[in-house]
Formats: sequence, structure tokens, C-alpha cells
Amino acid sequence: MRTASRRSFLIASSGLAALAAVPKSWGRELGEPVRPYGERSPFEKSQRFYRKSPIPETGASGTPLQDSYGVITPSALHFESHHSGVPQIDPAKHELLVHGAVEHPLILRLEDLQRFPSVSRIHFIECAGNTSGDLASTPRPNVQRSHGLVSCSEWTGVTLKTLLEEVGLKPRAKWILAEGADACRMARSIPLDKAIDDVIVAYGQNGEALRPEQGYPIRLVVPGWEGNVCIKWLQRLHVADQPSMTREEAAGYTDLMPDGKARMFTFVMEAKSVITRPSGEQTLHGPGFYEISGLAWSGRGRIERVEVSTDGADSWQAAESQEPRLTKAFTRFRLPWNWDGKPTTLQSRCVDETGYVQPTHDELLAVRGKNATDHYNGIKVWRVLADGKVTHV
Amino acid sequence: MRTASRRSFLIASSGLAALAAVPKSWGRELGEPVRPYGERSPFEKSQRFYRKSPIPETGASGTPLQDSYGVITPSALHFESHHSGVPQIDPAKHELLVHGAVEHPLILRLEDLQRFPSVSRIHFIECAGNTSGDLASTPRPNVQRSHGLVSCSEWTGVTLKTLLEEVGLKPRAKWILAEGADACRMARSIPLDKAIDDVIVAYGQNGEALRPEQGYPIRLVVPGWEGNVCIKWLQRLHVADQPSMTREEAAGYTDLMPDGKARMFTFVMEAKSVITRPSGEQTLHGPGFYEISGLAWSGRGRIERVEVSTDGADSWQAAESQEPRLTKAFTRFRLPWNWDGKPTTLQSRCVDETGYVQPTHDELLAVRGKNATDHYNGIKVWRVLADGKVTHV
Repeated sequence: MRTASRRSFLIASSGLAALAAVPKSWGRELGEPVRPYGERSPFEKSQRFYRKSPIPETGASGTPLQDSYGVITPSALHFESHHSGVPQIDPAKHELLVHGAVEHPLILRLEDLQRFPSVSRIHFIECAGNTSGDLASTPRPNVQRSHGLVSCSEWTGVTLKTLLEEVGLKPRAKWILAEGADACRMARSIPLDKAIDDVIVAYGQNGEALRPEQGYPIRLVVPGWEGNVCIKWLQRLHVADQPSMTREEAAGYTDLMPDGKARMFTFVMEAKSVITRPSGEQTLHGPGFYEISGLAWSGRGRIERVEVSTDGADSWQAAESQEPRLTKAFTRFRLPWNWDGKPTTLQSRCVDETGYVQPTHDELLAVRGKNATDHYNGIKVWRVLADGKVTHV
Repeated sequence: MRTASRRSFLIASSGLAALAAVPKSWGRELGEPVRPYGERSPFEKSQRFYRKSPIPETGASGTPLQDSYGVITPSALHFESHHSGVPQIDPAKHELLVHGAVEHPLILRLEDLQRFPSVSRIHFIECAGNTSGDLASTPRPNVQRSHGLVSCSEWTGVTLKTLLEEVGLKPRAKWILAEGADACRMARSIPLDKAIDDVIVAYGQNGEALRPEQGYPIRLVVPGWEGNVCIKWLQRLHVADQPSMTREEAAGYTDLMPDGKARMFTFVMEAKSVITRPSGEQTLHGPGFYEISGLAWSGRGRIERVEVSTDGADSWQAAESQEPRLTKAFTRFRLPWNWDGKPTTLQSRCVDETGYVQPTHDELLAVRGKNATDHYNGIKVWRVLADGKVTHV
């Protein structure tokens, strides 16, 4: 499988010359005792990135994808995006109202929701505006800033289908308005077909309760669709015969096309991939073996395959995809690579199970133009310089 | 699929009577701003359990399985077990020595390991002594105390096979001694067949660096084998022609049989399942619909199926298993259940892909006796009382 021959992985490494004798401060005395709740090592400094702002209650913070492993995003590093800050909700007092075109309107508390049949599924959530920095005249310098508004968790909750069966839909039911309990009452409309397909009213994330930034105590998870539809701090589901045309769907999350018309309800996040290692602001320490690793995901289903080019798109090699490849979830890809020390570029492109191929920057702009920054999913190219530094193109 | 009819899920719930109006303190003002690293809600109190001890540096703390969702264990709640405390290791100074019957002995630092081809796989780790409390005259009152020494994470690292190919094995190589950097130099021997099958030298857990209690910066993950073999704070791999007969394998982790002989090197954790909800010390609030949910796992491969009895083992129903069912990983199972309000018992049994069936308490004791407390995997029975209280049997 691996193209590198034995003992080639570490040719360039400086750490193998001799049996070193580094003075260590541990292992001579008893360590820390057992404890009720763990924290990461004080040596680990990875954190979400956000721009300083006079109103930090509306904004986003990005996941440090350059430090990511596998397909699960640690909840503490899951990207955030909110429009009026994170409400501090007491779950015992929080209520979810389900009403409108239903036979039996309900108010549900968390403990009620936890009585329903449950599901757990691994899905990514991605901000509609993720990767929009690649349209800027100065692209973002690293993968956290260019692609960090996407993360992937194991979500647990009740399917919206189960909940809608419980309240009983009236014949005119066609759209569901979901509303959050944050100060701006963030709200989006979801068509019924999607609502009963795979949407989850989630209370669990990565094995424990949702984190506050992720909608504690309950949120919608709308697999494969733009993150703003996955309403956090969910307090109301209103069933109606049409979309509610909220601010966020009539103006906010629309895409202005070159002809002056705007695309609305562009829910699906199309197939995207990015190399996370090596990536911008990282450094290769001399020629030799490196593993190229990255993430791919598609709002339309499973990732079928990922290809990587290390020679300016002259040739493409099939990367190995981590199994199992789950629908609407991160797929980790990996490719062994021997760097010859010369300047080059690295890029990945993915194909999803529908056959959709991730477009190049130019292909995408030819269709969409530059008016709309949301839903950009062009191929990301990293440049490797002769000194090993990796930069944006 | 679900046996419960529409609107039956919440018949017994008290929260649905009318449109309530609970005063809330949130949603009127801007919430918390974006932040670099998330914490759980202050309303969440779930924590690992451990007995107070004059030497808390040797001991174990159990995962609160009663609060678990899905199959991923949050790293902060992953069970701990250590013999001389958790060393605080500076990863820049930590070294892994690979030597013995090898062609090219090596010292590797974390940054060297991260140059190798990597894998990420979801696996459980279970303490050999997990569930031993079910042999006590007074069984543990809840699932955290009876079964909490098992957890499941997505682990990332280099396969031990890759590492051994790098150093080159000499013909006499048959066993690998793994040694930790903790004060007791915890050490176990692993046969070569297993070492090159699926063992991982891991540096990542659930998308980020290992947690200190889980062996930061590197540990062994030996899929399906007792946790003490998964050496944490790994600092040495010594290749030899036989096991080293360390204290932990010559005395510590052996199983005394009824005939006075001891089983040694009983590595594999056999198939086990337990209902986590409802479970001991939880309460059912009146007759009606409940989802029975639990976890199953096997050190020999995938869980084939899980069956649940709600009537004292007179009949068994097939539970639904969460997909994908991964090898040597947690499988979450779920079964819809309408409680008629009468006292009963709840129990689960699992079958793994080899056809191995989880035994009853009595079946297991007939073979193994009570001398050995490790590797107990009998069926766990919870009693439901008329007032809804759930207790151990």
C-alpha cells in the first residue's frame, strides 16, 4: 500500500541520531490522583480563532482543523456562530413549543424529549459562509481561518419525524419554522420533506449534553444543510403551509448571482475537501516522507473518493479514505508523499456519492460570480516553498 | 418499526398539560460572546466516580454510563485507571525507545511519530476488572459503579506494525514489552501476532491530543484487550523472544480458577452488554412509553445482535443496533418499551460476530468460580419496582 520503503519515513528527522538523554521532571514521583472530570494537558494550546470585535456576541469562531485528528471534532473546539450571543439556559425551565398546523400542539421539556425513541448519528455542521475567505483578494493564511467553520460530532436526539408524528400534521403542513431562544430569536423555515427525512432535535453531542455554544439544551441538526438552519437553543417549531420568510432567509442567507438575482433557500452544503496537514503556516522540515491528510464532506451524502495532486494539478492520486465513510459526515483522507524538496503545490478534490465533483476556484466563479460569499466550495491549493514553508496561493 | 402508537410516548408525562409560562432569565439580552475554548454548561454535573482513598494515585474512576449518549465517550469522562498517578509530561521532552530484537533501534519523539502514516479508529478500552462488583455480595447500585470502567473513543496514531517495520524485526522477535513513563513503570508484554494485527501507538483521542489520564502524549491502544495492556505514557517498546513476566502479568492481572490454577495472559475482553437507561438509581415516572437503551461491546469483533428481556428472561426481543457497528467498539442498542406499571426486571444479552453469547451470572460462575474478579461479563439484571425505582438485583 504505502509507497515509501522501510526506514524512509524518518530520513529527514533530526530526532533519531543517538540515544538521547533529555532531563525529565516526571516519572520519579507519584503523579496526579484520579479526578472527577478531565481537562486537556496544559501543554495543549489549540483554540478556536475569531476576530476581535466590539460586538463579540455576533460572530463566529473557527475550529483549528490544522490540529485535528480523525473525523470527530472535540466539542470544546467545535466552531461557533451566533447572532446575539450564547444564552445561559436552565434546562429544567426550557420549553419547546410545537404548534401551528398540527392536531395536538405540545410543550416539551428536555425530560419529555428524552422519553422519545432516540437516534445517534455522526454529521458535520458547516456555516454557509465557510471558506468565503478564499474569494478575498488576500486569502486566509491557514486552514483554520479558511475552512474552520465546519465541525463534525456524534449527535443524539429525537428525529423531527417522530416529534411531528406525535403532534399529528394537518394536511396543509408544508414547512416548519424553527426558532431559537437567543435574544435575536434566530429563525429559519425548513420544508417538510427534509424535516421528516433526517432532521434531529438533538440534546446530545459526542456522548454528553450539547455544549452551550452548540445550542444547549436542544438544537436542530439538519444533516448536510447550512449551519444557520440548525437552530440552536430551540424553543419553537411552528408548522405552516409556506416558509415564514424570516430576516435570515429573505435577506441574510441568500446568494446574489452575477445577473442581479438572488438564490434563496440554498440549503445544501456541496461537496468540499481541504488538506489540513501540511497546510498554511506549517513547515516541512526538509525533503522526505510526509503524510498528506485532510477532510472531505458533502451535504448530499457519502464521500465517494478524494484525489490529491502534489504537482500543480498535472496528475491526481487516489487518497485512502478512513472507513466507515458516513453520510453527511467528515471523511478523513490520507496520502503518503515523498517531498523532493522542490517548490510545489498541494490540493485535494472530492467526489460524492451523487457523482458531484468539487469544482476549481475558477469553475465556481464562472457560474456564481463574486457577489455571493456563501456556499463557496472551490478546490483549496496550498503552496510549498523551497524552505518547506506552506502558504496560501 | 416502533410498537408504540402515535401520541403514546408521552402519556405519562406531566409536562404537556397546558401552555406553561415558566419565567426565564435568558433571551432578553445578548448572551455570552464567542470564546476560544468551550466548557460544558454549569447545569451539567455528570462526573467520574471513584472511592475516596488515602492513595488516590493508584485507583480507578468510572464513566457515568447512565448519562451517556451514542457510542463516543467524552474524553473528560473517559474512565481512568492508574497505578502511580498521572505524570505531567512535556511532549517536547518525551521520548519513545524502540529496541531489543530489532535491526535499527530508534528513539522517537512525538513529532517523529506524527511523520508516519496514521490511522484513526473507534475502539472501546475496558479495565480487566470492570463489572467485578457484580460478584460482590452487595452489587453496585448503579451502572457507573458496576460497568463504568469502559469507554469508547476515536483513537489516532501510528500502527505498531508500521513502527516495527521501520525498526526491522530480527527473526527471534516474538513478544513486545511496552512500558509507561509513570512512576511505577507499568509494563505488559504483547505477542507479536497481536502487535502487527491492529495495535495503535496513539497520540490522538476524539479529534485532539490524548488527555493526560489517557496517556498523554502517547499510549498503546490494543483493540479488544484488557485496558492495562494499553500502556499509557508509553516510553519504551522492547522486542524479545518471550514475555517479560512483569509483575502485572506474572501476578497482578491473572485469574485464579476454582482448581487453584491461574489463567495468565487473559487478554481478550469477552462480549458484554448493559442497559444504561433505565438503570440502577433511576426512576420511571409512571406507566407508559420508555426507550430502553444500552451499550454492547466485544473484544473479538463486531456485535452481531443484542436482545433485551423485560419479563424476567421469559422472552427476549431483538433490540435495534446503532449503525455502523464497528469492530471492538461500543454498539448502542435501543428498544421501545411500554411499562405497564408492574414490578419486573430488565436485562440485555449480546452476541458477537464469532457467535459468542454473553453468559448469565450463574453460567459464568459455574466455569470460573469467584476467586477471580477480572473478566466478569455476566448478564446484568436491573429490577423495576412498582413505584418506578430501578435497583440492582
